[in-house]
Amino acid sequence: MKKLINAVEKVEDEMILGLVKSAPKKLRKLDCGKVVVRADKKGNDKVALVSGGGSGHEPAHGGFVGKGMLDCAVAGAVFTSPTPDKIFEGIKAVATSQGVLCIVKNYTGDVMNFEMAVDMAADEDIKVDSVIVNDDVAVKDSLYTTGRRGVAGTILVHKISGAKAEEGASLDEVKRVAEKVIANVRSMGMAISPCTVPAAGKPGFTLADDEVEIGIGIHGEPGTTRAKIISADETAKILLDKILADIDFKGSEVVVLINGMGATPLMELYIINNFVQDYLVANGVKIYDTMVGNFMTSIEMAGFSITLLRLDDELKKLYDAPADTPALVK
Amino acid sequence: MKKLINAVEKVEDEMILGLVKSAPKKLRKLDCGKVVVRADKKGNDKVALVSGGGSGHEPAHGGFVGKGMLDCAVAGAVFTSPTPDKIFEGIKAVATSQGVLCIVKNYTGDVMNFEMAVDMAADEDIKVDSVIVNDDVAVKDSLYTTGRRGVAGTILVHKISGAKAEEGASLDEVKRVAEKVIANVRSMGMAISPCTVPAAGKPGFTLADDEVEIGIGIHGEPGTTRAKIISADETAKILLDKILADIDFKGSEVVVLINGMGATPLMELYIINNFVQDYLVANGVKIYDTMVGNFMTSIEMAGFSITLLRLDDELKKLYDAPADTPALVK
Repeated sequence: MKKLINAVEKVEDEMILGLVKSAPKKLRKLDCGKVVVRADKKGNDKVALVSGGGSGHEPAHGGFVGKGMLDCAVAGAVFTSPTPDKIFEGIKAVATSQGVLCIVKNYTGDVMNFEMAVDMAADEDIKVDSVIVNDDVAVKDSLYTTGRRGVAGTILVHKISGAKAEEGASLDEVKRVAEKVIANVRSMGMAISPCTVPAAGKPGFTLADDEVEIGIGIHGEPGTTRAKIISADETAKILLDKILADIDFKGSEVVVLINGMGATPLMELYIINNFVQDYLVANGVKIYDTMVGNFMTSIEMAGFSITLLRLDDELKKLYDAPADTPALVK
Repeated sequence: MKKLINAVEKVEDEMILGLVKSAPKKLRKLDCGKVVVRADKKGNDKVALVSGGGSGHEPAHGGFVGKGMLDCAVAGAVFTSPTPDKIFEGIKAVATSQGVLCIVKNYTGDVMNFEMAVDMAADEDIKVDSVIVNDDVAVKDSLYTTGRRGVAGTILVHKISGAKAEEGASLDEVKRVAEKVIANVRSMGMAISPCTVPAAGKPGFTLADDEVEIGIGIHGEPGTTRAKIISADETAKILLDKILADIDFKGSEVVVLINGMGATPLMELYIINNFVQDYLVANGVKIYDTMVGNFMTSIEMAGFSITLLRLDDELKKLYDAPADTPALVK
C-alpha cells in the first residue's frame, strides 16, 4: 500500500481537518467527531439538509456543505457508516424549526444508522425526515445493500434539494423535490484499477493488466462483470446502454455527470465525455448541462461512472440556482 | 499501459472535444486544431489572455478559458509544445485592439514557440506581449528548461491577470500584474507513482513500492531526489521548507494551492493540507485562501505540488474577483 498518509488510524480525522481548513469561512467541524457543518449557518428560516456515509468518497459529502447544498455532512471511517450518535449530533447542530431532511445513500449500514439517528432526533421533538438515494443500475441487490446502491447521483440530490431548501420551502416540499430527483436519476460505474482501504492494506479486488470491472460499487465492491479492457467509447456505451434501458430518457433534457473514481485523469474523463455526448444526442436525449470531475470517489480507484438526471422545468431551475461549497460553486 | 482511451493517436483531439462539449456555452474549439476560445467572446473592450502548452495537464489550460481567466488556450500533443502556427491562430481569434497577453510556462519548447507566434502576430500589427511563469523551486536548470520551470502557479497567473483584464486595464497594466504574481509565486511537487505518455506506452520513470520522487516536473521528468517513502507531513515539510527558503513569506498573506498530479485521491490532498496549514501558521505565514484539487496535472501521476502566492491588496482584490470557467468558478 503506497499512500500519502501519516498513519492508518489518523486518515479520517486528518482528512476532515484538512477539508475544513481549506475553507474556514464555509465549514466548521463539530468537536464530537467527523461532523462538518456550515460555518455561516443561517438562522431558523430554512430546512436543514444532512448527509454522510463512510469516508473515502471525497469530496462527498463534506465538500458539498455550504450555501445551496448541505448544512451538515457526517463521515464514518473509510467505507463504514457513521454511527447513529454522530449523525444525531449533526442533526441537532443544524436543526431548525422548519425541520431537517437526511439524504442517505442506499447501503444497509447507512440506512440503519440514519434511521436510528432520525428516531433519536424525533424523540427530542426535532422535525426530521429522510430520503434514500438508489441510483446505481448495476445491481438490484448486493453484498452490502438490499435494492439498488446510492452512488454519484446523490450529488444531484444534494444540489437540487439544497436549492429548494434555500428558497425557504417546507420540509415536505424539499422532500418531494429530493424524491423527484431520485426517481429520475440513474448511474453506473466501472474500474480499471481497484482501491485500497488504508486499514485493510490491500485492494478490495485485483485486476490483471488487461482486465476491467464493470458495475463496481463505491466501497471497493467488485463489479458485476469482469471483462477484457476495451476502448473508452465501448466501455462508456456499456454503461450508457444499461442506464438508458432503465428509464426512458428519450426526448428529455438531462444533466450528464461524468464522475472520476479518484485516480482517473481528467484527460480520460473528457475522452469519455466526448463519446457520451454524441451517443446521447444520437439517442434523442437532450443535454441541458454537463459536469465532469471527481464528485463521488472510491479513494484512489481508477475508473468512472456516468450519471443521467432527467429534468423538468422545476428541476432545471433548482439545478441552476447558486451554490457555494468547497467542491461545487455555481 | 492501462488507460481509458480509444487510440493513442486520438487522445488529444478527443480530449479537447470532450472538454468543449462539457461546457458548450463557455467554450468553442477552432477548426484549425486543439485551440479553445471563449464561446461568449467579449468585444473589443479588454486585453485578451492566451495560454497553452502540451496536453496532459488537464484541466490546464483549456479548463481555465472563460470569464475572468483566459480567452484562449492552445494545446499541443501530450507534453509537447503547440506549434507556433496554432498559437498564432489562437492569438488572431481573440485579439482585440487593447492587445493580447500570452502566459507561457517556462519550458524551452513553449517559450520558443510562443515567441515565434508573438512575432507572427506582431507582423500582422496585433498588439501582443508575453510573460514567462517560472514558479518551480525544485530545479534551477533541467533537461527541458533553462531556469526554473513553470508549474501550478500558472493557474494563479491566469486567475489574477484575467481579473485585471476583465476590469478593462491596458496591456501594460495586465502584464505588470501578471509579473507581480510571477515574482511572488513559488511551487514544488513530488510523486509516488509516475505517468505514462500514451504514445510512449511506458512510464517516464519507475519507482519501487517504497520509493518516491521529490522535485518532479509536470512532464514526467523525474525528481531531483529519489527517497524512501515517508509520512505525508514529512513529505509536505520538505516541499514547504524549500518554498519558504526561496522568498520570505513570513508576515504575508498567501494563497495556498494544494495541487493533485492527476491520480491523487482528494483524501490525501486534504491530509496534506491539514499539515500545510498548521506549518504555515507556525512559521508566521497568514493564509488568505486555499485551493485543493487537480489544477495542473501530469496525466495519471500520483503525487502533489504545493504553491504559495504572496499577496498584497491589489492581488487579493483580483484573486477574489469573479471567474466562470469549467475548472474554476468564483
